[in-house]
Amino acid sequence: MPCPRPGNQPIFLGVVGDSAAGKSTLTGGIADILGRDRVAVLQADDYHRHSRAERRQLGLTPLAPQSNHLDILEQHLCLMRRGQPVLKPVYDHTSGTLRPPERLEAKPFVIVEGLLAYHSRGMRDCFDVKVFVEPDETLRTSWKLARDCAQRGYSLVEAKDSLARRAADSAAHIQPQRSFADIVVRFTPAAEDENHLNARHLLRPTLAHPDLGPVLDAGGKGGFHLALARDSDGKPVDMLDISGRIEPRRAKAVEDLLWSLIPEASHLRAPLGRFTDTAGQDSTSHSLALSQLLITYHLVKAATGLAPAHP
Amino acid sequence: MPCPRPGNQPIFLGVVGDSAAGKSTLTGGIADILGRDRVAVLQADDYHRHSRAERRQLGLTPLAPQSNHLDILEQHLCLMRRGQPVLKPVYDHTSGTLRPPERLEAKPFVIVEGLLAYHSRGMRDCFDVKVFVEPDETLRTSWKLARDCAQRGYSLVEAKDSLARRAADSAAHIQPQRSFADIVVRFTPAAEDENHLNARHLLRPTLAHPDLGPVLDAGGKGGFHLALARDSDGKPVDMLDISGRIEPRRAKAVEDLLWSLIPEASHLRAPLGRFTDTAGQDSTSHSLALSQLLITYHLVKAATGLAPAHP
Repeated sequence: MPCPRPGNQPIFLGVVGDSAAGKSTLTGGIADILGRDRVAVLQADDYHRHSRAERRQLGLTPLAPQSNHLDILEQHLCLMRRGQPVLKPVYDHTSGTLRPPERLEAKPFVIVEGLLAYHSRGMRDCFDVKVFVEPDETLRTSWKLARDCAQRGYSLVEAKDSLARRAADSAAHIQPQRSFADIVVRFTPAAEDENHLNARHLLRPTLAHPDLGPVLDAGGKGGFHLALARDSDGKPVDMLDISGRIEPRRAKAVEDLLWSLIPEASHLRAPLGRFTDTAGQDSTSHSLALSQLLITYHLVKAATGLAPAHP
Repeated sequence: MPCPRPGNQPIFLGVVGDSAAGKSTLTGGIADILGRDRVAVLQADDYHRHSRAERRQLGLTPLAPQSNHLDILEQHLCLMRRGQPVLKPVYDHTSGTLRPPERLEAKPFVIVEGLLAYHSRGMRDCFDVKVFVEPDETLRTSWKLARDCAQRGYSLVEAKDSLARRAADSAAHIQPQRSFADIVVRFTPAAEDENHLNARHLLRPTLAHPDLGPVLDAGGKGGFHLALARDSDGKPVDMLDISGRIEPRRAKAVEDLLWSLIPEASHLRAPLGRFTDTAGQDSTSHSLALSQLLITYHLVKAATGLAPAHP
């Protein structure tokens, strides 16, 4: 299905990763910068084909392609890319049931969060910026158990069981999408403190990344470091490491540089990096904030046409 | 939105008219001829925006354009015309509530029944054959009261109240669509017997109608009569009258002629004209059967490309 985009139609960000990888936390700050009224967020989980009970009966996890209306998701992405509204299905995570559909109007920016949003060529072709989120697995497990029990009505045993059942589908269907991303974001605990996460960005050459030269560490210290490296698949990447312990002064210098590179968006400058910490409190992370800003940079550039998405 | 149709994509029949105008009874037989597995039936009522309770609160009838997701209906018609499946909303007439959406796959024939399916140019452009059903108003009132009370949980007072509230919206939004139809079908009681309905077809020159010469009444008697007339809007039409009392032998001659004109569909020949009579019993009507066959003629011709839809 061709997805032509007439002038001035939405810019698409994809944020794909396993469940509880931190997709919504990452995109929340990006939507805040861009302005909530200018952003449509599409949750690909809404395209689940079955209720939780039906999946159990069928022996399916939500990570399996056949557990989702992926062709309809692709169709809706294509429609929204042309600026059209969609009547999207609704999956209620709290009860695990399907609900009546809801309208989603296209906005200048569309953020798509999901498990399988890079599954087909047709879906991938819709995005201007493709991010894959891949936290340290211990971290993800703890996030997932906490969320499933607190918000989705699972017992701890059920949540652990769900994780185990999903492992094979994650390896078969979620992880392979990593190779399509322009940016792979990996959060890891800084020392033993889950509230200060290090962020590593693998920057693939499919996007024109900003020149970070002026704010990079000279000798590998200071918390903001770029190095040429080989990815786990052997391919060359720029590896940007943002320390969870970066000094506020250094973080501000990086922020200032990034904002100066998108002067067309300077009026959007807002507090970033908010997340819910392990004690359930609202907190702020510099490494998260900078990750959000780096991605926003690409969206603003795509919108203003100053940086071709694929140089 | 352009709706190009690649080769061999679905043929679209529209059947539009006020509620309880007999749309489903008419289309049921057509789907039976074409083969249920080759027909997708789309009920435009599923695109109601509100539950019955919400409409009451808002003071809206389902006949008002703003009570429906008409832009999404148009989008879905366009997608199905290109052979794509849609995830369509579901309105439950029994309870008057919105339900989780369901997949509808495109089939060689798509029949769209609804109140407002000719409302926009984009929707009208999707159809190969556009029928408007317009029964005698006394007949429609009795059908509507019977159905609303028996199947939709209304009391008689509520059903009558609903009819009264709908009258203005019907005049404003439903009736004007009559002018877009290729065929207007009007059922009227034969004498005082609701189980023998006369059918009058106004045949507009927007379709290449079959040559009925060999089976027309010579002197206006016999139950199958064609005359040049002026429509209620003053425009010229062919007016085909099929008597509810047409002799079975005559009805069979007309049927034979119509089947002979679509030899490519002769293997589909099946009993027609079934309806639920005033006593709630399954019954058969020759005038209904011939109406169904006349419409099917156009669908088969459109599918085989023997008759251009717009000569």
